[in-house]
Amino acid sequence: MITSIQGGVCAAKGFSASGIHCGIRKNRSKRDIALIYSASRANAAAVYTTNLVKGAPLIVTKAHIADGCAQAIICNSGNANTCNADGIEIAEKMSAMTADALGIRADDVVVASTGVIGQPLNLEPIAAGIPVLCDTLSSEFEGGANAAEAIMTTDTVAKEVAVSFTVGGKECRLGGIAKGSGMIHPNMATMLVFLTTDCAISSEMLAKALSSDVRSTFNMVSVDGDTSTNDMVAILANGAAGNEEITCEGEDFAEFAAALNTVTVALCRMIAGDGEGATKLLECVVDGASSLCQAKTVAKSVICSSLLKAAMFGADANWGRVLCAIGYSGADVDISRVDVSFRSAAGVVDVCRGGAGIPFSEETAKKVLLEREIEILVSLGSGEYGATAWGCDLTYDYVKINGDYRT
Amino acid sequence: MITSIQGGVCAAKGFSASGIHCGIRKNRSKRDIALIYSASRANAAAVYTTNLVKGAPLIVTKAHIADGCAQAIICNSGNANTCNADGIEIAEKMSAMTADALGIRADDVVVASTGVIGQPLNLEPIAAGIPVLCDTLSSEFEGGANAAEAIMTTDTVAKEVAVSFTVGGKECRLGGIAKGSGMIHPNMATMLVFLTTDCAISSEMLAKALSSDVRSTFNMVSVDGDTSTNDMVAILANGAAGNEEITCEGEDFAEFAAALNTVTVALCRMIAGDGEGATKLLECVVDGASSLCQAKTVAKSVICSSLLKAAMFGADANWGRVLCAIGYSGADVDISRVDVSFRSAAGVVDVCRGGAGIPFSEETAKKVLLEREIEILVSLGSGEYGATAWGCDLTYDYVKINGDYRT
Repeated sequence: MITSIQGGVCAAKGFSASGIHCGIRKNRSKRDIALIYSASRANAAAVYTTNLVKGAPLIVTKAHIADGCAQAIICNSGNANTCNADGIEIAEKMSAMTADALGIRADDVVVASTGVIGQPLNLEPIAAGIPVLCDTLSSEFEGGANAAEAIMTTDTVAKEVAVSFTVGGKECRLGGIAKGSGMIHPNMATMLVFLTTDCAISSEMLAKALSSDVRSTFNMVSVDGDTSTNDMVAILANGAAGNEEITCEGEDFAEFAAALNTVTVALCRMIAGDGEGATKLLECVVDGASSLCQAKTVAKSVICSSLLKAAMFGADANWGRVLCAIGYSGADVDISRVDVSFRSAAGVVDVCRGGAGIPFSEETAKKVLLEREIEILVSLGSGEYGATAWGCDLTYDYVKINGDYRT
Repeated sequence: MITSIQGGVCAAKGFSASGIHCGIRKNRSKRDIALIYSASRANAAAVYTTNLVKGAPLIVTKAHIADGCAQAIICNSGNANTCNADGIEIAEKMSAMTADALGIRADDVVVASTGVIGQPLNLEPIAAGIPVLCDTLSSEFEGGANAAEAIMTTDTVAKEVAVSFTVGGKECRLGGIAKGSGMIHPNMATMLVFLTTDCAISSEMLAKALSSDVRSTFNMVSVDGDTSTNDMVAILANGAAGNEEITCEGEDFAEFAAALNTVTVALCRMIAGDGEGATKLLECVVDGASSLCQAKTVAKSVICSSLLKAAMFGADANWGRVLCAIGYSGADVDISRVDVSFRSAAGVVDVCRGGAGIPFSEETAKKVLLEREIEILVSLGSGEYGATAWGCDLTYDYVKINGDYRT
């Protein structure tokens, strides 16, 4: 059984975290650097952006966790440390300083950065901040919350979630934090997500669980169609729960994977619902597909349509835009079998059956679409596969936030 | 020599046009139906959307010009006649009524519709309007201008262009009108564009010239990444210029293709610059690519980035977003060789060399980006190929227009 519990990265035993303002950002009230630490060396896995332009921290992290282990995560916001001539050197120094302060190996540090691309990252505030981060590490709820706040960019809310579950009779915990908002259209990896668990699991199985999970979770989120240069999901598993280590597929692995999926789906919903400028969480639920690939392609195409996103902002049941997005998705769909409905806490309204419009009450539709969370239900009528994609509406504030992000 | 001349679809000899308000739209001051007519039967070619959801008029048009001939184009705005159970029947009737009124064959009519998807199209106002359209046909500038206005949806300006050129010692003319604005991300075909020419050219060579041209023109335009269900480019060539018919490749065909390209590029710029809510025309000019495909993929990815589009709206030289869009484009680019500059009537500002940022004057950059037409210059440093893509900025008005389009 998977139970929701309080906290984020500190929910699992043996993990502590902190987040402070060190001076990368001008605004002194905004935390801009986070540290997550495991009391013991942990198994680690990560997935990264497929963008050919890769942030320097990703290249350094990939090398550091090549051995399947890590013990700390250091992450700054306000500057992506990407497209800078000395980026890798800076990321290496940031890791080394963290390792020194914690007394751990430099190659056991996961390093990440998020913010503006192409501006040199000044190490001075980071050097001054790292000892403070170490001094303020806390395994209490507050430590994780401060870290979650420190990795935010244009996010409006910090994103934390945690669950408890049982493996081999032992209670385990898995939690995470995420940074979402803009430049969110992950491909094989995603935005910044840091996950911790005290479940004992080998680094091979950890990597397997993570890479399999992101395909149906973070890779199905889109805020604006832009795949970031710095996307990363990293997970540390320190085994503090005391269960027998998971080293192969089976019941225990399935339980771990289900717990992981509960946390990642919750983070996906938080990231999409807090997309830049968003007023609504959009969830496109596709069923009746002839393959998983078809279901995913259709769900993601619908969630990415700028026209549909704008219509949802206006609570306008313009379902023709759903059909249009299905039609150009690239999936081989029999349009004459497609049904579309909109659903929310206020009810459900059927708008299209067999590829053609049906009469519906505009009043009911408006009521359904004025809610904060909207499901777009698409039935393809051609098979047994399904998929879900998450996104948000397109609003004036998205334009405002991105019209002048650097200043 | 290709010379710009006044007019649109009536610039070529033997063509007349009209545009009136017939009642499909509630606003009586907005023309909503257009007719283009050739005094003699013309050779015809067209390309269509690749969206699996295809407007009923496209299916009917495709059948009508299967024989390579047509004599009239009828097009309404305000309703797309798409995703309606009786769509094809309606489009056939619209053709038949036009043919009857003009005394031509029903299968010599090109039929098109644009507007809201999924609402039944009422034939009554169309039936009443067609005789008026026929009575008001004019070969003067005004006829073409009225037709250009009648096919507009959220366009803010009518789009017309025409050129004269010489084939086999005879002066020929080629002109066109376009409807752009939203749901603009053509694939193999595009928005509504109607072209007329008095140049004599066989229907085979006409089709060849058109399908080759759209690959580097309309297919390189994006306003919002949404490929419409009703995109169509159609061309009629009536031979009234009296040149010897072009029936194969060679000097004459090259001259015709160049004239066609002059008109289509001009229409692309008009469509992109008048994208929904746009305040700026964006032109991404890529050179130094290792293949044409690489150049096109990069140019189109840059022009489609919501983040870059919003930055351009804010006149913010956020070049990291250009690199980001190159990186996720799918093209195999050596990022360390990429240079980026912004150019406009106010000057040029170099922002990135060899994949990394270089110091530049923010003041100059602002001045460059405050212009109405912005070029984003990308050099890939890997070869001799180039491509251009056209788009527009992402603005508050895009959201406003699309947040409540149906009402």
